[in-house]
Amino acid sequence: MSSLTTRELADLVGGELRGTGTRLIDDVAGLDEAIASQVTFIEGAAADGSPKTSAGAVILAAEHLGVLGDAPKSDLILVPAPLDAFVTAMLHLRPMPSAPDVGRSPQAHISPTATVGSDSHIFPGATIGDDVQIGDRCIIHPGVVIGAGCRLGDDVTIHANAVLYAGVSLGDRVIVHATAVIGADGFGYQFRDGRFTRIPHTGTVRIEADVEIGAGATVDRAMIGATIVGAGTKLDNQVMIAHNCRLGKHNAFASQVGLAGSVTTGDYVRCGGQAGIADHAHLGTGSSVGGKAGVHGRVPDGADYHGYPAGPAKEQYRIVMAVQRAPEMRRQIRALEKQLKQIQSLLGEADSHQPSTASAPAA
Amino acid sequence: MSSLTTRELADLVGGELRGTGTRLIDDVAGLDEAIASQVTFIEGAAADGSPKTSAGAVILAAEHLGVLGDAPKSDLILVPAPLDAFVTAMLHLRPMPSAPDVGRSPQAHISPTATVGSDSHIFPGATIGDDVQIGDRCIIHPGVVIGAGCRLGDDVTIHANAVLYAGVSLGDRVIVHATAVIGADGFGYQFRDGRFTRIPHTGTVRIEADVEIGAGATVDRAMIGATIVGAGTKLDNQVMIAHNCRLGKHNAFASQVGLAGSVTTGDYVRCGGQAGIADHAHLGTGSSVGGKAGVHGRVPDGADYHGYPAGPAKEQYRIVMAVQRAPEMRRQIRALEKQLKQIQSLLGEADSHQPSTASAPAA
Amino acid sequence: MSSLTTRELADLVGGELRGTGTRLIDDVAGLDEAIASQVTFIEGAAADGSPKTSAGAVILAAEHLGVLGDAPKSDLILVPAPLDAFVTAMLHLRPMPSAPDVGRSPQAHISPTATVGSDSHIFPGATIGDDVQIGDRCIIHPGVVIGAGCRLGDDVTIHANAVLYAGVSLGDRVIVHATAVIGADGFGYQFRDGRFTRIPHTGTVRIEADVEIGAGATVDRAMIGATIVGAGTKLDNQVMIAHNCRLGKHNAFASQVGLAGSVTTGDYVRCGGQAGIADHAHLGTGSSVGGKAGVHGRVPDGADYHGYPAGPAKEQYRIVMAVQRAPEMRRQIRALEKQLKQIQSLLGEADSHQPSTASAPAA
Repeated sequence: MSSLTTRELADLVGGELRGTGTRLIDDVAGLDEAIASQVTFIEGAAADGSPKTSAGAVILAAEHLGVLGDAPKSDLILVPAPLDAFVTAMLHLRPMPSAPDVGRSPQAHISPTATVGSDSHIFPGATIGDDVQIGDRCIIHPGVVIGAGCRLGDDVTIHANAVLYAGVSLGDRVIVHATAVIGADGFGYQFRDGRFTRIPHTGTVRIEADVEIGAGATVDRAMIGATIVGAGTKLDNQVMIAHNCRLGKHNAFASQVGLAGSVTTGDYVRCGGQAGIADHAHLGTGSSVGGKAGVHGRVPDGADYHGYPAGPAKEQYRIVMAVQRAPEMRRQIRALEKQLKQIQSLLGEADSHQPSTASAPAA
Repeated sequence: MSSLTTRELADLVGGELRGTGTRLIDDVAGLDEAIASQVTFIEGAAADGSPKTSAGAVILAAEHLGVLGDAPKSDLILVPAPLDAFVTAMLHLRPMPSAPDVGRSPQAHISPTATVGSDSHIFPGATIGDDVQIGDRCIIHPGVVIGAGCRLGDDVTIHANAVLYAGVSLGDRVIVHATAVIGADGFGYQFRDGRFTRIPHTGTVRIEADVEIGAGATVDRAMIGATIVGAGTKLDNQVMIAHNCRLGKHNAFASQVGLAGSVTTGDYVRCGGQAGIADHAHLGTGSSVGGKAGVHGRVPDGADYHGYPAGPAKEQYRIVMAVQRAPEMRRQIRALEKQLKQIQSLLGEADSHQPSTASAPAA
Repeated sequence: MSSLTTRELADLVGGELRGTGTRLIDDVAGLDEAIASQVTFIEGAAADGSPKTSAGAVILAAEHLGVLGDAPKSDLILVPAPLDAFVTAMLHLRPMPSAPDVGRSPQAHISPTATVGSDSHIFPGATIGDDVQIGDRCIIHPGVVIGAGCRLGDDVTIHANAVLYAGVSLGDRVIVHATAVIGADGFGYQFRDGRFTRIPHTGTVRIEADVEIGAGATVDRAMIGATIVGAGTKLDNQVMIAHNCRLGKHNAFASQVGLAGSVTTGDYVRCGGQAGIADHAHLGTGSSVGGKAGVHGRVPDGADYHGYPAGPAKEQYRIVMAVQRAPEMRRQIRALEKQLKQIQSLLGEADSHQPSTASAPAA
C-alpha cells in the first residue's frame, strides 16, 4: 500500500485540512476500528452522540466539526460529501485490481460462432454458447455459462458460476454476481388429467443497462414476451423475479425479496428484505415496500407500504400498535362486560324498587 | 420463423375459423403486445372487461366470442382450450431447439466407471463421478457436477452448474434447473461441550419421475433413509426442502418456500411463495398453503391454510379483517369505558336521590 | 456392507445388551422403517407413545427400557446417549468414503502462484486464483472458484460450484456447501442525480474455524473491514449474511434466514427458518429468534423473540392468542355497545320517571 500525509490526503479529496497535515496515512478503516495510520469518515447517524476514534485523519462535513470535541486527536478534513471523499481516499489507498489480462482463455469453452469484443476476458472454465455476442471490455469469470444466442453489451461483468439460459440480453455495464441465474423457465404449468404439464416458455429476459444482480438471484424468462429489469435497477442476493415481471428503472430490492409472476413496477421503487409481491401486483413509481411485507394488488405511486397483508405505513403502524395491545383489549372487554352485568343487575334491582317505571327494556 | 395463414393456423390447432383466413401469422405474442402478424389468445381473467388487441389472430373459447366486440379486427379461432391451442401454435412458430449433438464432450470430466445411455449429451465442463449411471436421452449442461454413485433415469435434463451430491437418484424425465443443489448434508448437529457437532448424514435423496426443481433450489439428504420428492411434483426457484422430508406426488411449491426437517405432504399439495413449514409438520392431500404462511402441526386433507401462524383460510380472513380494525376497536373500548363511567357516576348520583333503595351495589 | 451380531454391536457402542446377542445386523434405519437385519435407536420424542419397530436391534437409554413393551421383538442395547451410539454404529456399517486421491487434478485451473498444502485435493474444473493459500488436507470439489488471495486453513472442504470472491479467509475445518457464495460485494449504493452509484467494497469476509455454510448461502464482503462469521457457527442453506455483519461463535441459523447490513450477534444465538434481522440490529448472546420472526433493534442476552415485529416470546404468545380472538372481540364490543345503548335508553326513561333528579349526565 502507498501512503499519504494528511495534507496530501486533503488535497486528494479536495477538502479543508484542520490539523498537522503531517500524519502518514496508509489505509482506511471504520470509525471504531481506525488506528493512527488510517483515515475514517463521519456521516449521517455516525455524527450523533459523541463519536470517538483513534484514526489519524477523519473526513467529515463542516457542520459536524465539533462532534469530536474541541481538541480532536485526529487531523480533520472538511468536505461537503464525506462518503464521496472517503471513497476517493479508499480507492487511492486500496486501488482496485485492474482487469486481469486473460483474454480468451484456451481453457474456456467458447463456441466458434460466438463473437467477443475487444479487451474482453473469458476465464478458464467459462462456457460461451453458439451465436453469443459479447461486447467490449467484458469480464466473464470462471464457471460462467452463457447459453446460445445471448447478447451482452459493453463493460459487462459476470461473476463466477452465474448462468444465462439461451437468448437472454444484458445491457451495457450490467453486473451479474456469482451463481445468479437469468432466464430459467418460468413456473408455469397446466393442470390436467391429474398432473402438471409444463407450459413452454419461449420468451426471454431483457436486463437493461447499469443493472446489478446479486449472488444467487434468479430472474425467470417470460412465457411469450420478455421479463424486463429496467435500467439502473439493483437486485440484492437471492432475489427472485418470476416470469413476465416488468421492473421499471432504478428500483432497489433488498435480499430475499420475491416477485411472483407478471408483477410490474414503476421507477424508483424500493423493497425491503424478504418482501413478497403477489402475481400481477403493481408497485407504483417512487413507492416503497417494507421488509417482510406481503403485497397484493396495487401500491400507489409514492406510497410506503408495510405489513402482511401490506397497507399504507401509517395505518399499519397504528394496527401494529393496537395489535400489541390486543391482550390488554381482551382484559378491558372482560372488565367492561363484568361492570355492565353489575349495572344491569343494579338496574334490575333498582327497577324492582321503582314501581312507577312502566316500561322495561327489551331483552 | 415460418409463417401460416390464419386458416392454416385454425387447422393446425383444430379450431373453428371466424374471419378472412388469409392473414399471415409468423409469431405469437401477449394480448396487449401482439401486432397484425401475430397470434394471441384469451383465457381466464383476460376475458373480463373489454380486452383489446391488434393481433392478426386470436384463439379463444366459443363462450368468449363477444368479448372483442361485434366486428373484431382480428381473425378469431374458436377452440375448447385456448391455452393448449396457443401452445401448439407457439411451438410451431417458435420450434424448440433440438438437443444439441454434443455427445460425451471430451471437455467434460467423466469418470471411466460412469455409464451413460444412448443419445445422452454431456456438455463441456460437466463432471460425472465414479459409478454414476445416466439413462438415455439425458442432457447434462455445462458445469453440472454429479457425485459418485448417482443414478439418473431416461430423458433427464440437468441445467448448468446444478450439483448432485453423491448417491442421489433421479427418476425419468426429471428436470433440474441451474445451480440447484440436491443431496447436501442436512442441518443436523448435536450440541455438547458448548459446540455443535455434525451428525453424519448417510441417507440420500430420491427424486421421482416427472419432478421439476427450480433454479437455486436445495433438497437436503436424509440422515439415515431418504428425502423424497414424489412423482410429478414441481418446485419453483429457491425452494428449500430440508432433510428427511417426504413430499407426495403432484405437489407445486412456489418460489422461496421453505420446508424444515421431516415435513411430510400428501398428493396435490400447493404452497404459495415464501411459505414456511415447521419441522415434522404434515400437509394433507389436496391442501393448500397461502403465500408467506407459517405452518406448524397438521394441515387436514383438502384444507386451505393462510396466515402466520397459519389457520383455515376463512378464519384467517376474519382475523385479518378484525386486525385491520384493531385501532378502531381500541377507540371503541375507550368510548365504552368512558360511557360506562358516566353511567356509573349517574347511577351513584341517582342512587343518592333514591332513599327508598335499600341495597347498594357491591364495590 | 459389513455385518455384526447384536453382541458385537453392543460392544462396539459400549452398551448393555438385552436379548439374544446373535441377530445379524448389516445396516441402520429409522424406527418405522427398520427391518430385522437393521439397528435403530430411540431418543427424545420418539420414546413417547408406544413406539413400534421391526428392527433387529434398538439402541436406547435405560429409562426407556419399557417403551417397547415387556417382550420386545428386538435385541436392546442400553446406552446413556442413544444418538451418539447410533452414529457410531452407522459409521461402522456405512463407512464414509475416504478422501479421493485426486491430488492437484491437471484438469483444475490452478494459478502458478497459488500454494496448496499436503494431502489436499483439487478436483477437475476447480479454479484457484493467484496467490491463494490452501492448507493441508483440504478438498476442493469440481467447479469451485477461489478468487485471488484467498486463504484457507487446514481440513477445509468446499463443495461443488461454491464461489469465494478475492481475498476471503476461511479458518480450519470450515465446510462450504455447493453453490454458496462468499465475498460478493455488499448491497451498498449512493443515490444521487437520480441513480444508484455503487459504493466500492474493499473489505473482506473472515470465516472462522469450524464454521459450516449451507448450499446456496451468501455472505457479502464488508465495505471497509470484514464481515465475520464466528468460530463454530452453522448456517443452513440459502441463508443471507449482508455486508459488515459480525456473527459471534456457535450461532446456528436455519434455512432462508436473512441478516441485513451491520447486524451483530453474540455467541450461541439461534434463528429459526426465514427469520429476518434488520440492519444494525443486535442479537444478544444466548438469544433465540423464532422462525419467520422480523427483528429490529436489540434482542437482549438470553431472550427468546418471536413474531413480526418480534418481541419476547411470552408477550408474543399472548398477542397471537388475543389476535386469534380479534373477530370475537369485535362481536363482544358490538354487544357491549348495544347493551350500553339499552341502558342509556333505560336510564333516560328512568330519568324521566325521576323528577327529583336535578342533575343530568354531561353529553
